[in-house]
Amino acid sequence: MPQEITTLLTFFGGTGDLAKRKLYPSVYNLYKKGFLQEHFAIVGTSRTDLTNAEFHDMVRESINHVVEDEDDAKHFISHFRYLKLDVNNKDGYQELLKLNNELDAQYELKGNRIFYMSVAPRFFGTIASFLDSEELVTKNGEFNRLMIEKPFGVSYETALELNNQLTKVFDEDQIFRIDHYLGKEMVQNISSIRFGNPIFDATWNKDYIENVQVTLSEVLGVEERAGYYDDAGALRDMIQNHTMQIVAWLAMEKPASFTDKDIRAAKNVAFNSLHIYKGAEVGANFVRGQYGENIDGTQVKYLDEDGVPENSQNDTFVAGRLQFRSSRWDGVPFYIRTGKRLKSKQTRVDVVFKKGLSIFGNDIELDNPVLSILIDPKGSIEFRINAKDTTSEFKTRTDIMKWEVSYLDMERTPEPYERMIQDAMNGDGSNFADWNGVSISWKFVDAIQKAWDTEVAEFPNYVSGTMGPKASDDLLAEDGNHWIYR
Amino acid sequence: MPQEITTLLTFFGGTGDLAKRKLYPSVYNLYKKGFLQEHFAIVGTSRTDLTNAEFHDMVRESINHVVEDEDDAKHFISHFRYLKLDVNNKDGYQELLKLNNELDAQYELKGNRIFYMSVAPRFFGTIASFLDSEELVTKNGEFNRLMIEKPFGVSYETALELNNQLTKVFDEDQIFRIDHYLGKEMVQNISSIRFGNPIFDATWNKDYIENVQVTLSEVLGVEERAGYYDDAGALRDMIQNHTMQIVAWLAMEKPASFTDKDIRAAKNVAFNSLHIYKGAEVGANFVRGQYGENIDGTQVKYLDEDGVPENSQNDTFVAGRLQFRSSRWDGVPFYIRTGKRLKSKQTRVDVVFKKGLSIFGNDIELDNPVLSILIDPKGSIEFRINAKDTTSEFKTRTDIMKWEVSYLDMERTPEPYERMIQDAMNGDGSNFADWNGVSISWKFVDAIQKAWDTEVAEFPNYVSGTMGPKASDDLLAEDGNHWIYR
Repeated sequence: MPQEITTLLTFFGGTGDLAKRKLYPSVYNLYKKGFLQEHFAIVGTSRTDLTNAEFHDMVRESINHVVEDEDDAKHFISHFRYLKLDVNNKDGYQELLKLNNELDAQYELKGNRIFYMSVAPRFFGTIASFLDSEELVTKNGEFNRLMIEKPFGVSYETALELNNQLTKVFDEDQIFRIDHYLGKEMVQNISSIRFGNPIFDATWNKDYIENVQVTLSEVLGVEERAGYYDDAGALRDMIQNHTMQIVAWLAMEKPASFTDKDIRAAKNVAFNSLHIYKGAEVGANFVRGQYGENIDGTQVKYLDEDGVPENSQNDTFVAGRLQFRSSRWDGVPFYIRTGKRLKSKQTRVDVVFKKGLSIFGNDIELDNPVLSILIDPKGSIEFRINAKDTTSEFKTRTDIMKWEVSYLDMERTPEPYERMIQDAMNGDGSNFADWNGVSISWKFVDAIQKAWDTEVAEFPNYVSGTMGPKASDDLLAEDGNHWIYR
Repeated sequence: MPQEITTLLTFFGGTGDLAKRKLYPSVYNLYKKGFLQEHFAIVGTSRTDLTNAEFHDMVRESINHVVEDEDDAKHFISHFRYLKLDVNNKDGYQELLKLNNELDAQYELKGNRIFYMSVAPRFFGTIASFLDSEELVTKNGEFNRLMIEKPFGVSYETALELNNQLTKVFDEDQIFRIDHYLGKEMVQNISSIRFGNPIFDATWNKDYIENVQVTLSEVLGVEERAGYYDDAGALRDMIQNHTMQIVAWLAMEKPASFTDKDIRAAKNVAFNSLHIYKGAEVGANFVRGQYGENIDGTQVKYLDEDGVPENSQNDTFVAGRLQFRSSRWDGVPFYIRTGKRLKSKQTRVDVVFKKGLSIFGNDIELDNPVLSILIDPKGSIEFRINAKDTTSEFKTRTDIMKWEVSYLDMERTPEPYERMIQDAMNGDGSNFADWNGVSISWKFVDAIQKAWDTEVAEFPNYVSGTMGPKASDDLLAEDGNHWIYR
């Protein structure tokens, strides 16, 4: 049995979709593995009227697919309490305080508390203030931590305002900004591969790497999220957070050790050297797109989706070139792209190595070696290298060495939410976004959005089911490069 | 159609097993591919009485498995002639000269001649002398070349004597010393992988490589070759030639270009820096073995094989540590081993990279990344790297990325003999052994044999079906290493 974690975990948004689909099953998995044993309690709050018994039924239903032993599940759920709470009403927090203190005494929780915000972003600041004023944050606890869902602001200004509200109550190292892409197995594998093998570690720089590519592509369109999505766009919905956070694992310096403090320091060397585009630089380095119909007309264009405003200028696709002004990366483009209604669902990283001078004669054209880390839908590592062709005359060609995640691995790989809750319980911020990275990403993204807002785009500009507008391919072609996944 | 090669090819030993199994099918394959078209002729010679018609039947039979079109095969065979020849008898060479000149005129062969020695080694020198004295080597030809089968001597002294005989007639660049391991696809792939990818090219040295391992293991015992084998032993039969030649591709410097001249220069930097052991160094760096029975007694020990002398001290297994005294390899052991009656048939190279310092914490033990090039029985490239374990806590483990030769590739990969004959026709000595390499290998091997001859070994010392004597594992353990294939 592992060492158990002693904590009280309060979910704001405790009857929400995320709580039922991800959070309760994740907590149950931690319980099954013994990370939670006796000294824990879970409080769910929301505006809904619910008895404890009804709440227990709801939790039981939500964990049904992971329950193996009924008695075990019963015991687990007995540690759950429900409280109806209006997050704007001070009195509710007094009730919550009473409940927290009772549970603390009952389960000997040592004043250790985690508050998980799974509510609409406009409530984040309010909740944090009440946690402080109503003294839910304990003085005697080993820890008090905040887990906060995205979006963390919708611009640099709003993010800063939110952060100011939070940091009145919590220190930076108590705030766990969730980016579930950082909880994915193969995203976490990037650093193991890079820093665990001197052959990659030593060549991970401008002398050996030609360019780096990060792709987050979706097949689905906007579905039922048009209301939110048309305000956000791909740039704010996918680039500012997930994409930039993956880039940070690729572009970071080598950390002195594998602690969250050292990892963040190493990532921030990269963030701090990111060139923020101004004016005409945006058009030269970033491409936006909006999907049209697919080729046979069976899927509607973005503008015809339910809930999308007429003449919307929203971006459903973004591709861009990042430039790090550092001695490690000077001159090495980091290409990123994301979009809806693309050819396939892929989250992947392609590290394109330089070709070097061929000694094999003038007629032999070497290709770029490529290390690809495939994150979704199925984890794999592929290393494309130049090798010998099998024909009579001496020629080269590329062969791909491949490792693919096994079914056994997939079974035992924790869900991102399980990992993130466990990490927060352990106080390990390695796989969460820190304020410096978030703020620079917002400044970077705001500058692009600002430039776009001054010009009307000709949308739609890509056919659904393709990999986006031609301008995305042209962006790489300007540098003599191309997308590895095409 | 490729450019055709114009040449007359004379086989000494033209009715032998090698000619029938390998040489004629190889020549036919070159014909099918268009490298030979009209301007070629093949002469077979041996002591056997045979008419041209009988010889044609023999050749037809030998290529049966590769014939697709009967007319094509007929036309091919029409370019063949037979001559009964006693290689010690001067008069026979006059007949051969007459036949060669006739064929030269008939097929317009421009005086281009290749002489292929597939006879007992004691005749190599004699034949070369007669080729010279009887003027079979043309003055007007674009080329005259000699292809010579192994063994090239049985010691440095005998090899030097043979070489002196040959070089009276042929220059070094006219002599093609056959080592069929150098004709294998995956042996040829070593240089493509190494020099075609800067990430390997730049790390192929003592800063990144911990050790290099070359294994040539056989499952079979001595079979019907006891007479020859008990004189030679694994050291002279497998190490002096095949193993050292593979090592040369691994240990060589980077050639200025991919010509045979530059490749040999780069290999000779390695050969010339090989430390030749003296006296007690041999015992400290080399292990010999002789097989005993297998575990259930169903296979006899070497000493009980037919034709093996009582109390034979012959080595059926050799493992050793090579040391190159060069700035590239100083301190990096090259481990080699070969043997009969081992666990599996394998020809493989394992390049063991250094671990480097782990940043992942004290409890996380990194492993050595390993690039393995599997040559026999099936070609593959495997790259074992440190990556993330899939469990909840952060740990590393090794994952293996793998590329495996396809059936299509195998079908179109030329047999080593086809490649070697084609290379010799093209005057490309890249995949043949040169005198400097051969002579240093002999000096190296002679010194080991000399030390062994002064001491009686306790044989048998390994169980058939294992990977050899314990001393072979101990050899690597002394350096803190272990065989990758165990």
